[in-house]
Amino acid sequence: MSATHKAEAKPPMRDALVAAAFRLFLERGYEQTTVDDIVALAGVGRRSFFRYFPSKEDVVFPDHERCLADMTAFLAASGKEHEPVRRVCDAARLVLLMYAENPSFSVQRYRLTKQVPGLRAYELSVVWRYERALAEYLRGRFTGRPDGNLHADVIAAAVVAAHNNALRSWLRSDGEGDASATVDHALGYVQSAFGASPTAPAPTARPAFPALPAPPADELPQDVVVVVSRRGAPLWRVVQEIETTLGRD
Amino acid sequence: MSATHKAEAKPPMRDALVAAAFRLFLERGYEQTTVDDIVALAGVGRRSFFRYFPSKEDVVFPDHERCLADMTAFLAASGKEHEPVRRVCDAARLVLLMYAENPSFSVQRYRLTKQVPGLRAYELSVVWRYERALAEYLRGRFTGRPDGNLHADVIAAAVVAAHNNALRSWLRSDGEGDASATVDHALGYVQSAFGASPTAPAPTARPAFPALPAPPADELPQDVVVVVSRRGAPLWRVVQEIETTLGRD
Repeated sequence: MSATHKAEAKPPMRDALVAAAFRLFLERGYEQTTVDDIVALAGVGRRSFFRYFPSKEDVVFPDHERCLADMTAFLAASGKEHEPVRRVCDAARLVLLMYAENPSFSVQRYRLTKQVPGLRAYELSVVWRYERALAEYLRGRFTGRPDGNLHADVIAAAVVAAHNNALRSWLRSDGEGDASATVDHALGYVQSAFGASPTAPAPTARPAFPALPAPPADELPQDVVVVVSRRGAPLWRVVQEIETTLGRD
Repeated sequence: MSATHKAEAKPPMRDALVAAAFRLFLERGYEQTTVDDIVALAGVGRRSFFRYFPSKEDVVFPDHERCLADMTAFLAASGKEHEPVRRVCDAARLVLLMYAENPSFSVQRYRLTKQVPGLRAYELSVVWRYERALAEYLRGRFTGRPDGNLHADVIAAAVVAAHNNALRSWLRSDGEGDASATVDHALGYVQSAFGASPTAPAPTARPAFPALPAPPADELPQDVVVVVSRRGAPLWRVVQEIETTLGRD
């Protein structure tokens, strides 16, 4: 717990260790850098390193523990008023914020991780923990629904994949461009696929199109776009859908 | 290549090594068993072990390389006539078949993997390779579509999550029950979410409602907004119209 607390406070020594580690990783390569090299450059002892980081891998991803804790707290603070799919999308955005806080560091780490198989494996295990956090929340919200656990697992995986697709494309562009917009767009796809059905009330007597008289085809202009949208959908989602329909980017 | 070929042929020595390894893993624990222990029990030399398995982890998952090769070949043999989402679901079923070939071995391994963090990490990397194989195929099929790569990544992740949810529930039931039916049901959920829209053919002789993928009636929420707009209308006009309809400013 004390390590977590210190991680949240971001003391200078912790930052100095991360900075020293990355300078050496980029100069010599990750495998060629030892913890001894890092502490020598940072001017601290080995015990200080291991007070903050359980292993050399952890110094590469110094903020994931904090972010996982933030995500868990965010999800735990959810109420019944939160639409669950939107809620896990919002939770995923916390990961993006962590990357976007320091674009140049995130881009450096992305390049490093691509080169070192051990770091890719570490990253997979971190991604898996985020995915489980989202899935556990959804499982709770879907309790009692048929296939609730299945839906929770699939939606959590889809959210993580969409988030990571957007995050990686932002990282590949060297952290240029609007990361939030890219991630919003990607998560919009997941919400459009899953946002309604797992949370929609079971259909009762309600007709499918309660107040939609289908316009006679011959009264419509030849070149027409029809967008059907939930009333509660955020406007950006509707615009996105129109853009996609019109084939604009 | 020769190792792969031997893996396909499943020679007795390879089987003997797997059997000896599992006997020791279950008796002594995974961490307490060395490669030397395994080869001593199997009555072969260390070089024989490493001819079949690059590491001790690999003997736990002896058939994944073959299965990955089968999946890649299956996807490569796809044609335009295959609906892409169904095709990746069928590809995922190859993994299930591998597990179902030998239920008691699969159940033993599931229990072992749950106990050993290193094996869980190994398994995550294998799952990631399956997911990438599915995503790469979908990316190819979705080339030229808006957001093709995003859709490919999300659908691949959803397929893997659905498959693994079903596989794990079968493994937790000690390999009792109909694994195929469980996986089919889980994959059906993914197909219902993604099966139609990403693969709908581009409108050609465009009818009056050119780009309206009719949502399944039971998925339509009560409170729906329908906007009909000319295709050539500027986007801001469409947005204005929606805002007016929604009563927003």
